[in-house]
Amino acid sequence: MVEPTPIICTVDVTLLTLQDDMLHVLLLKRDREPFAGALALPGGYVHAEADQSAEDAAARVLKEKAGIVSPYLEQLATFSGPGRDPRGWSLSVAYCALLPAELLAVDGAERQLRPVARLPALPFDHARIVDAAVQRVRSKSQYSSLPVYLCGEAFTLPRLQAVYEAVLGEPVNKVSFRRKMDELGMLEAIPGAQTSGGAHRPAQLYRLRREFRHALSMLDRGINV
Amino acid sequence: MVEPTPIICTVDVTLLTLQDDMLHVLLLKRDREPFAGALALPGGYVHAEADQSAEDAAARVLKEKAGIVSPYLEQLATFSGPGRDPRGWSLSVAYCALLPAELLAVDGAERQLRPVARLPALPFDHARIVDAAVQRVRSKSQYSSLPVYLCGEAFTLPRLQAVYEAVLGEPVNKVSFRRKMDELGMLEAIPGAQTSGGAHRPAQLYRLRREFRHALSMLDRGINV
Repeated sequence: MVEPTPIICTVDVTLLTLQDDMLHVLLLKRDREPFAGALALPGGYVHAEADQSAEDAAARVLKEKAGIVSPYLEQLATFSGPGRDPRGWSLSVAYCALLPAELLAVDGAERQLRPVARLPALPFDHARIVDAAVQRVRSKSQYSSLPVYLCGEAFTLPRLQAVYEAVLGEPVNKVSFRRKMDELGMLEAIPGAQTSGGAHRPAQLYRLRREFRHALSMLDRGINV
Repeated sequence: MVEPTPIICTVDVTLLTLQDDMLHVLLLKRDREPFAGALALPGGYVHAEADQSAEDAAARVLKEKAGIVSPYLEQLATFSGPGRDPRGWSLSVAYCALLPAELLAVDGAERQLRPVARLPALPFDHARIVDAAVQRVRSKSQYSSLPVYLCGEAFTLPRLQAVYEAVLGEPVNKVSFRRKMDELGMLEAIPGAQTSGGAHRPAQLYRLRREFRHALSMLDRGINV
């Protein structure tokens, strides 16, 4: 059996967050060819010496290139072919991560957040990867606790509903939303913690229960069904 | 930038079918090392010279090794790491295919169908890949026309219901099943075609409408919801 021509193996991470209640993606300025200077998804080679899996490589790339450890990192799909990378036949295992914007250090130059609805031209097939990630997050959010990863550690129920609405891109009925959150069983009230109120009545603060910090809770029927 | 150590890039295909109304997977006897002689999923290297994508490689492998062209071939997930292949750090893009058993040439030796509920020990991480495929097909079947790919070209509604039940592993209510099939809108009655009946009343034969032969139709709510 002849050994086949080596394939370029990389990972790319679509890290999504909410800013001004719109989904944004983290883009980094590339510091080397190909496409040096262009904004692109954080990505890099899979290193046989360093990585125990492609997921490991994705976590390493996020940490090394963006200083981020994401509690949620999901394999999205693998993109491949002779034309997607000028260096040759390549294959990229794409991952999706979610993080509250407060935890992201962006500087407006090397590290930028851009709204997914108005992306700049992206190198490789990164526009397709971002599209796939947004679609996955939207459809999964209908059925799960996924959007909680976009909230900070403590949040009110109205804030969580706004986050779901921003991700889904549609309004959610308040009564049915509260019932679905009960059904998901992932939240706990933080004892004695309320918002300070201001013009509004103080509201109870919630947090994710410990067992759901790295695992989704799933609904049988969608949020809006 | 130092070029990284090459990664072994392969594809593996979990081809599922129904036999005796139980999900079966196609296994081939491996004709070379590693694991020569063992039953395993059809798989092989991605060939940069021959393949336009990993999906292309999966279709080529299915055709070359099993003589099969599957109308349905979906990317499942990518499995990777230093320990899954004795040849070295490897990455396999796994695909899932569905086909009616009549279209599969099996010989009981080189090409075998085995029930997914009673798999033999499989080399590499193929047991994990089959598990992931079965889980994906089950969950997707709740919401889509997917099981139709397991039927022949013409089928009755009671037969299609039996196929859904076999895939889902649970009974389906007949009235709600018929409503869901209407909602999916993927079937058409074959003009003038009925089963010959025997002891039963002749039943109308249906087929997949042309536009759904290579695309799924999706439900908003699951079959059993």
